[in-house]
Amino acid sequence: MSSTSRALLSLVLSSAACFAAQPATPHSDASLRGYNSDGARAEREWEEKFRAIPSPENMREYMRRLSAYPHHIGSPYDKDNAEWILAQFRSWGLDAHIETFRVLFPTPKLRTLELVAPGHYAAKLAEPPVPGDPTSSQTAQQLPPYNAYSIDGDVTGPLVYVNYGIPADYEELDRNGISVKGALVIARYGGSWRGIKPKVAAEHGAIGCIIYSDPKDDGYAQGDVFPEGAWRPPFGAQRGSVMDMPVYPGDPLTPGIGATADAKRLPISEATTLTKIPVLPVSYGDAQPLLAELKGPVAPEAWRGSLPITYHMGPGPAKVHLALKFNWDMVDIRDVIATIPGGDDKDEWIIRGNHYDAWVNGAEDPISAQVALLEEARSMAELRKQGWQPRRTVIFTAWDGEEEGLLGSTEWVEQHAAELKQHAAVYINSDGNGRGFLGVSGSHTLEQFMNGIERDVEDPETKLSVRERLKLHRISEAKTEDRKELRNRADLRIGALGSGSDYTAFIDHLGVASLNLGYGGEDGGGIYHSAYDDFYWYTHFADTNFVYGRALAQTAGTAAMRLTDADVLPFQFSDFADTIHKYVDEVKALWKEKHDEIEERDRELDEGVFPAITDPKKVLVPPKREEIPPYLNFAPLETATDTLSRSAEAFEKAFKDSPQPPAQELNAKLMETERVLTDAVGLPRRPWFQHQIYAPGFYTGYGVKTLPGVREAIEEKHWDEASHEIEVVSAVLRNEAALLDEMTALLKK
Amino acid sequence: MSSTSRALLSLVLSSAACFAAQPATPHSDASLRGYNSDGARAEREWEEKFRAIPSPENMREYMRRLSAYPHHIGSPYDKDNAEWILAQFRSWGLDAHIETFRVLFPTPKLRTLELVAPGHYAAKLAEPPVPGDPTSSQTAQQLPPYNAYSIDGDVTGPLVYVNYGIPADYEELDRNGISVKGALVIARYGGSWRGIKPKVAAEHGAIGCIIYSDPKDDGYAQGDVFPEGAWRPPFGAQRGSVMDMPVYPGDPLTPGIGATADAKRLPISEATTLTKIPVLPVSYGDAQPLLAELKGPVAPEAWRGSLPITYHMGPGPAKVHLALKFNWDMVDIRDVIATIPGGDDKDEWIIRGNHYDAWVNGAEDPISAQVALLEEARSMAELRKQGWQPRRTVIFTAWDGEEEGLLGSTEWVEQHAAELKQHAAVYINSDGNGRGFLGVSGSHTLEQFMNGIERDVEDPETKLSVRERLKLHRISEAKTEDRKELRNRADLRIGALGSGSDYTAFIDHLGVASLNLGYGGEDGGGIYHSAYDDFYWYTHFADTNFVYGRALAQTAGTAAMRLTDADVLPFQFSDFADTIHKYVDEVKALWKEKHDEIEERDRELDEGVFPAITDPKKVLVPPKREEIPPYLNFAPLETATDTLSRSAEAFEKAFKDSPQPPAQELNAKLMETERVLTDAVGLPRRPWFQHQIYAPGFYTGYGVKTLPGVREAIEEKHWDEASHEIEVVSAVLRNEAALLDEMTALLKK
Repeated sequence: MSSTSRALLSLVLSSAACFAAQPATPHSDASLRGYNSDGARAEREWEEKFRAIPSPENMREYMRRLSAYPHHIGSPYDKDNAEWILAQFRSWGLDAHIETFRVLFPTPKLRTLELVAPGHYAAKLAEPPVPGDPTSSQTAQQLPPYNAYSIDGDVTGPLVYVNYGIPADYEELDRNGISVKGALVIARYGGSWRGIKPKVAAEHGAIGCIIYSDPKDDGYAQGDVFPEGAWRPPFGAQRGSVMDMPVYPGDPLTPGIGATADAKRLPISEATTLTKIPVLPVSYGDAQPLLAELKGPVAPEAWRGSLPITYHMGPGPAKVHLALKFNWDMVDIRDVIATIPGGDDKDEWIIRGNHYDAWVNGAEDPISAQVALLEEARSMAELRKQGWQPRRTVIFTAWDGEEEGLLGSTEWVEQHAAELKQHAAVYINSDGNGRGFLGVSGSHTLEQFMNGIERDVEDPETKLSVRERLKLHRISEAKTEDRKELRNRADLRIGALGSGSDYTAFIDHLGVASLNLGYGGEDGGGIYHSAYDDFYWYTHFADTNFVYGRALAQTAGTAAMRLTDADVLPFQFSDFADTIHKYVDEVKALWKEKHDEIEERDRELDEGVFPAITDPKKVLVPPKREEIPPYLNFAPLETATDTLSRSAEAFEKAFKDSPQPPAQELNAKLMETERVLTDAVGLPRRPWFQHQIYAPGFYTGYGVKTLPGVREAIEEKHWDEASHEIEVVSAVLRNEAALLDEMTALLKK
Repeated sequence: MSSTSRALLSLVLSSAACFAAQPATPHSDASLRGYNSDGARAEREWEEKFRAIPSPENMREYMRRLSAYPHHIGSPYDKDNAEWILAQFRSWGLDAHIETFRVLFPTPKLRTLELVAPGHYAAKLAEPPVPGDPTSSQTAQQLPPYNAYSIDGDVTGPLVYVNYGIPADYEELDRNGISVKGALVIARYGGSWRGIKPKVAAEHGAIGCIIYSDPKDDGYAQGDVFPEGAWRPPFGAQRGSVMDMPVYPGDPLTPGIGATADAKRLPISEATTLTKIPVLPVSYGDAQPLLAELKGPVAPEAWRGSLPITYHMGPGPAKVHLALKFNWDMVDIRDVIATIPGGDDKDEWIIRGNHYDAWVNGAEDPISAQVALLEEARSMAELRKQGWQPRRTVIFTAWDGEEEGLLGSTEWVEQHAAELKQHAAVYINSDGNGRGFLGVSGSHTLEQFMNGIERDVEDPETKLSVRERLKLHRISEAKTEDRKELRNRADLRIGALGSGSDYTAFIDHLGVASLNLGYGGEDGGGIYHSAYDDFYWYTHFADTNFVYGRALAQTAGTAAMRLTDADVLPFQFSDFADTIHKYVDEVKALWKEKHDEIEERDRELDEGVFPAITDPKKVLVPPKREEIPPYLNFAPLETATDTLSRSAEAFEKAFKDSPQPPAQELNAKLMETERVLTDAVGLPRRPWFQHQIYAPGFYTGYGVKTLPGVREAIEEKHWDEASHEIEVVSAVLRNEAALLDEMTALLKK
């Protein structure tokens, strides 16, 4: 599901240096945080042995097998894959089982989209087989293009083009005097997670929503189209879930609890995460005849795609008819769970997961990273035979039902919430892989740790460490003002986790420190969630020789091992505190931006700017006057952040100075450090999301909002709520600082 | 010819407040700079009478007449128009005559462009008549699409797409390992004046050049295409001159002298302003089949247009054949000159000009502004009958041969250089007009003066003063940091003059203070230099009721009258000095930017950034190491600018304090104030361009370069030349300051 993981790569460049306990060039010394020197030496030897094992050839064969047929949930081949994965784990000597949940899964019974005036066009709504690509012709087994958890509907009305269909686009429509009330909207993919588009459209009164893939974004404007190139052909369409995941992910009928066979379920009518209006994804081949019949204002430059038409906003004269009916079935999903039992600290769990279900054949999404996970498991099993005994328990999870709404991981986490709260130390996720640069997002208490891993994995193309390559890449892309930090800060920054993959329940719901890993940036393509994401495409246009598959196995596997074997869990808090400082600066700047923007707009209304600039041949509705935002008291947040920094530094110093830290007592508290960042009340209007530092945006869907309670209150101009949320976040940060102080005291005992 | 005049509108927003003698709201008092209070009152009365005369209906009829047939130079209808304009001037009682020059004018004998592999496509190279648009079918009289002053040639070779074909684009090609040596380039219109494209292509070894209009820039991406809308239809093409005008404009055979019948002429082989390679403009209908057959790297995002293809850079496999032959004829061109003789100061001339020749029917370019000029002349003739006697002589000039390279104005200025140096006070130009906001570019000694005019002309749509509307428009478009100045500076800034219209010889060659005026910003279209720029198009999509034609007549006419009647010429120097300060800051920042850019690039070469970021599946040629720029001594320039500011302030104070300034002595010196900004040696490698503050860019063509000697030396990294040019400009500014000091002394006598 994750199309964002690679994009995150570019989001993590920023300012301000910080204290860091880990020396910048640990290759020159063999020390590892959380290990004594003998332990570090032994660990490095095991890790090197580990990294020699994963095999590109194996990964190619796993991919060929797992992507041989469409394998969405409820399909025979998805079940077959689960059993095959289970058999692999077992064949390597791992203790493995399948855990089954029962979930609501709508599949299309009727899909009709037609232009009814002027003229007539019946959308094809099908992806033609491509000569030479064998699996593209498995049309009988494929799910056709549709959006899961759209409601049924049969609507006819004028069409309005809404660009990405995010709130700012509706402001632009307002300025042009265009309402979508009673209309169908057509939005292009991009700019937000797809589920936001029908949600916002419905909020504005639209009666139906069409989402299309503009060739500007992933079609011919980007490169040659499949099968000549990697990009979306005219009738390729993007399937995908439109469940309201920013409210809660997982089975819509069992919020907050595991969807076991006998779980207490909501009736469908009470599930709040289904869409409010019918929604259907289409190709640009099907979108063009509709868009070409729009009139009304010419769309602003930023809205224009690459179709050879004039993009108008409408409404109409294009009138369209959309009819959708779904089979509202219950299906079984199967998570495959394999365990390597730990030793001294077996009750502390390091969990490594990736989903295996797909929309169609899913070679890239998710199999390209699932095959790395499989090689990690096989390699660790191999090491065990050679005598390696992990200190902690390693759990490999192959999730089902991720595509529909993180079903497999969410239900498993909800089902095992109590155990996980007690035992889960870290969750490491991946979800697709490609060529290029390592993308890392996750808990910033693991930022320094991941820099250590990045130093020890070799980039297959340049033979540099992946960290060095990433750093030089960032330098080459950076703005002048950001280069100094890139060159001088001890650790490369990592991104924050939004949503869009299986880490969501771990970090956002439970507060389990999490990571998401994947390579990318040198490949690209337009086959996401289409029938063309298959073995033929992947082996022609992506990581064709699976060397980045191996690099991902080496990266995630080394991270899992190093976390598993450490005497003391290698969480580090100076980078975390530095990051929080950055977020606090951002929300302060955001408030200032809103304040200045509203003040300026009100001033321009006073000056008469809008009547003066209006072209009488066009409609220009002046913006509404708004009250100038009140000043907010950020002092509690700033105080708490400073306290956190001081506590983090004191902990670092005490930890460095402690020759023999009390590992067990420390680890118990270290596992708590992410937990205390949650608040049981959850975020405003979405209690399932309990983490107070990271959350997917209510109006971005996948895209992260850091300090989400505060940030979104400011974005939405809920000033009282912003003040309240400042207090909530401040309390959480004070709790974190207090926990650090307790650990510092332990170290000083 | 001017497609840039309206774009200039947006270029003149910037920082720093300044002293200004003129109060911000002179409507509340009747004072006028350079007039005593009685004179100001009388002047205001005459101006009000004047502004009531120009008639939209007349302008519509003039346009219908002047654009009824194609009227390029050498055509019967161009001659007919000259005689008709002459007759109009005479019918209003003006003393008028035609002045004839003889110029080189190539017209096409053979135009062939074909894709010869893979496949075959013969370019149509013709603009089809449009049903409903009567003049579009006058194909027998039309010049077909071609670029004047391209050399003859017959070349075949691989094709390379070079984006806009400016120097930075060739750097990008270099980074991709692509050479244009022996190839034909295809460049899109935009990003520079068209003549720059074959010039830079030839410098890089290309053997031919095709220029096309991408639909992104003025076709369907911008709006509905003609005749449904205003934008370029698939087979519309942009004609235009490709003479190397930044070296010298005017007849290529008579640089620096008037092209009279008996002038001494260069042989064609020695004319340096012809292109070095053959060049042809084509429509996007003709370009698409060629571009679609390119392979090689996908063009960078900023290079991609709106055709439904993947934009590749090449070279090839597309192979094209271009053959061009021209009739290298000599033709007569006719400037129509009309005079209103002055009174007391009849030897000081206020000149008002616009060209009347066109590429085809030329309703917008240039007739839309020529008709304003005609109404100005008629209105002033009317006032004369009512008793108005201008103090200075007003000369109306209707130029011929502007399109081919400012032929009519340049030859006239060269022929009359000695008289003009002695008598010309101000030249006021226009060249096309549309709906919206007033665009003003010109000598900054006239900035305050033009603000006064803008206060007195009413915008026909909003009934605000055009100044107020322009100010509010700029506020609405401004960046935050620029709004304060917009709100607080006494005068709205005006743009600087580059080239592209008939002011060039006046200001750049002779140093005659100049202005260029025109309305725009609410209209737009893709008919520039095509057969579709005609009466039908203009009256459907532009200033359809000619109310902005009237506004232009009111603006330019009021300016001409107020300059003509003043006791003391209303040049003001504080705004000018403030502007020079800004330019000096800019060239200093430009040096710093070059310095930092080279330093950073060299550092990245040391760090190994380029091998690290290279995708082995693509070519990436690292940039060349360059020597870090030496520090430049800007002190002379800064000292001279400060001196100028002090002298300007002293003059302002003395002028304000002088109850009866010595007008005649002052005026003689005021006319010198623009002349002393020239240097007889001219700019490096182009001695014809003598102005040291303003020039068209050597590599932008129309786009202005201020402090051109210094700025272009820094851009081209000629560090010794930059130091030399700093001295040249400093001397010119010191001379200006000294002249101001002389005037101050006169006032204090």
